[in-house]
Amino acid sequence: MKILIANAGSTSFKYRLFDMTDEAVLAEGRLERIGDPSSPVAHQIGEYAVETEQHLPDYPSAVRDVIARLTDTRTGVISDLSDLNAVGFKTVHMRGKAGTYLLTEDILQRMADYNSLAPAHNPPYIQAIRIFAQCDPALPLIGLFEAAFHANIPDYAYIYSVPYEWYEKYGVRKYGFHGASHRYVSQRAAQILNREDLRMVSCHLGGSASLCAVRNGQSVDTSMGFSPQTGIINSTRIGTIDPFIIPYIMDRENLSTGEISRVLSEESGLLGISGISGDVRDLEEAAQKGHTRARLALEAFCYGIKREIGACSAALGGLDAIAFAGGIGERGANVRQRVCTGLEYLGVYLDEVANANPPTDGMISASNSAVAVLIVQTDEEVIVARAVAEYLKEHK
Amino acid sequence: MKILIANAGSTSFKYRLFDMTDEAVLAEGRLERIGDPSSPVAHQIGEYAVETEQHLPDYPSAVRDVIARLTDTRTGVISDLSDLNAVGFKTVHMRGKAGTYLLTEDILQRMADYNSLAPAHNPPYIQAIRIFAQCDPALPLIGLFEAAFHANIPDYAYIYSVPYEWYEKYGVRKYGFHGASHRYVSQRAAQILNREDLRMVSCHLGGSASLCAVRNGQSVDTSMGFSPQTGIINSTRIGTIDPFIIPYIMDRENLSTGEISRVLSEESGLLGISGISGDVRDLEEAAQKGHTRARLALEAFCYGIKREIGACSAALGGLDAIAFAGGIGERGANVRQRVCTGLEYLGVYLDEVANANPPTDGMISASNSAVAVLIVQTDEEVIVARAVAEYLKEHK
Repeated sequence: MKILIANAGSTSFKYRLFDMTDEAVLAEGRLERIGDPSSPVAHQIGEYAVETEQHLPDYPSAVRDVIARLTDTRTGVISDLSDLNAVGFKTVHMRGKAGTYLLTEDILQRMADYNSLAPAHNPPYIQAIRIFAQCDPALPLIGLFEAAFHANIPDYAYIYSVPYEWYEKYGVRKYGFHGASHRYVSQRAAQILNREDLRMVSCHLGGSASLCAVRNGQSVDTSMGFSPQTGIINSTRIGTIDPFIIPYIMDRENLSTGEISRVLSEESGLLGISGISGDVRDLEEAAQKGHTRARLALEAFCYGIKREIGACSAALGGLDAIAFAGGIGERGANVRQRVCTGLEYLGVYLDEVANANPPTDGMISASNSAVAVLIVQTDEEVIVARAVAEYLKEHK
Repeated sequence: MKILIANAGSTSFKYRLFDMTDEAVLAEGRLERIGDPSSPVAHQIGEYAVETEQHLPDYPSAVRDVIARLTDTRTGVISDLSDLNAVGFKTVHMRGKAGTYLLTEDILQRMADYNSLAPAHNPPYIQAIRIFAQCDPALPLIGLFEAAFHANIPDYAYIYSVPYEWYEKYGVRKYGFHGASHRYVSQRAAQILNREDLRMVSCHLGGSASLCAVRNGQSVDTSMGFSPQTGIINSTRIGTIDPFIIPYIMDRENLSTGEISRVLSEESGLLGISGISGDVRDLEEAAQKGHTRARLALEAFCYGIKREIGACSAALGGLDAIAFAGGIGERGANVRQRVCTGLEYLGVYLDEVANANPPTDGMISASNSAVAVLIVQTDEEVIVARAVAEYLKEHK
């Protein structure tokens, strides 16, 4: 079974082609700055590797270029699209549902209904899905929605204290995101620790960041909500704030709903506090040089994660493990240290040497730590590929 | 030193007159449903007690009636307003400041700037303060703002991940509320436990509800924020929700900022989820009869408190005590039990007998509980009176 996993950004396209017999990666690549005069691209297709710049005027041309490379008679790894069993998408959000779905017109419409909640993700995914559908109408296009992993959190954790009619009419509830990553991280952590009965907090910390409380491999709560804009502080997205800031600022600054949503998505988070960058590496450099607001942004970020680990521990009734993943989770030794300092009451003790020079995948807690602290190199694509394979088996 | 404490609601007025020599209460009373054809009133003025109905057409008439009763030549306890050293107000919110303040025109303007954030509190307080100022322009009118107790929480805990300019220009930050209650509760708990070095969560649970993380008598974080509309679920106010619900619903339901603010203040919280009541007693009765959404509202309420206790524990680096106060905190045995169940990992064990038949002020935790759990009958008025007395001493 061959499954192509497509990761669609607003001006980028990444892919990975799996042979699901052994989950071998037959090909992978990325195309960036699509629409610019010159786009950097990188491909590893079987034995053939290339890294270059290329003219990709629009999104369809980028997708068609990838298909052409994969089916190239000399260097390709499939003969044509019918060689694929499906294309899988790490789709983000749709109204009222979460799971693995065949991407029908109804599902695309539900995604479009929530475009304003995931403006950086839903529109490019819808676009990419339509392009694949045009290229080969017979090819199954299947999405693993990011909320799927959180689909079984209890009702008292997902309901919002707003008029209940909003839940019934518009699907207003906590969905949660980064489901593919949290699922991978919790499975891998259980494997490393060689036990299934774990109360764990999975910390996916990248430009987009969320925490997930996982009990025995199941999500029981998560920091993101109705949209991926809430929870812990993100790079340029707010995270959780007092909601009454929104009408207050709309009135004072005379902003429309679209305008304030854009500010809260693109000019807030670490960037909003610091005023200089949404990237933790930039902020650490600036803070070292005495930049007060860079220091403040980092401290607020780490404090929010620490607070959320405390909240997740209460949701779980105790804690056995903390797993860090994502760019900041894997490489942010200072962030990990700040987060864990003060959690000794839970039994969390870092091994400072291991934290400073961590393994790619493995333990960074001290031998006397009651709570295991791990780093996991997450792999969202393989989770999507497995979900798609399972869907195909169940629906053949 | 005689200080009158005035508690102003939109259609109610409550007062207490203290002799600060020994904090004796010389008089107290309440006037309700002001403006209705007939208003229930109750007074205990020295030896004189009355409970009756009375015609109070408007707010000024109610305040003037109280002054007339207090200064009555036969049954009153002061000869005229100049007998008072000050009138103290448990004022709620103003732009950019928190503390004890003489209620000057500048301060009243700052309060008016935040009317939309505390619509049930700021306008009636401003009205009551102006009436007292008219009655005796020489009388010092002093407010202890509810955020004062939280004035020293760290910057990384009070800053929001929004554009920093909003903090500088509009004072957008976490303020916190119920400061008088949290201060009283933390002092009283330290007294009962006979130790000052406490990491404590003060749970003020009434129609309006918030939690406060207190270390050695100082607030280090609290669940409410820029407004009293966020944090744990309140009776009819949202508490923390995904902020992106607001623009989403405004667009779908074509609501203005004022309209959605009203829904989020008056038709949300426990009432919003259950659809029947914002009162925990009503919900417990309905849930017992099988009302699904009443059960859901109660579970979401208690789960949110439990989660916030976990978050406060992380902020405090551990936990020594939990104190319950307010109407639900004092009388809600089921709520206390639901909240504490699952916190055994922190060392929290309730004494079920004591919890079911609690003392007015005292312990309800089991003898083997590492964390002391207490009930405290809060007294916000005496905290305001003490703050006013201190202000007068410092400014004489």
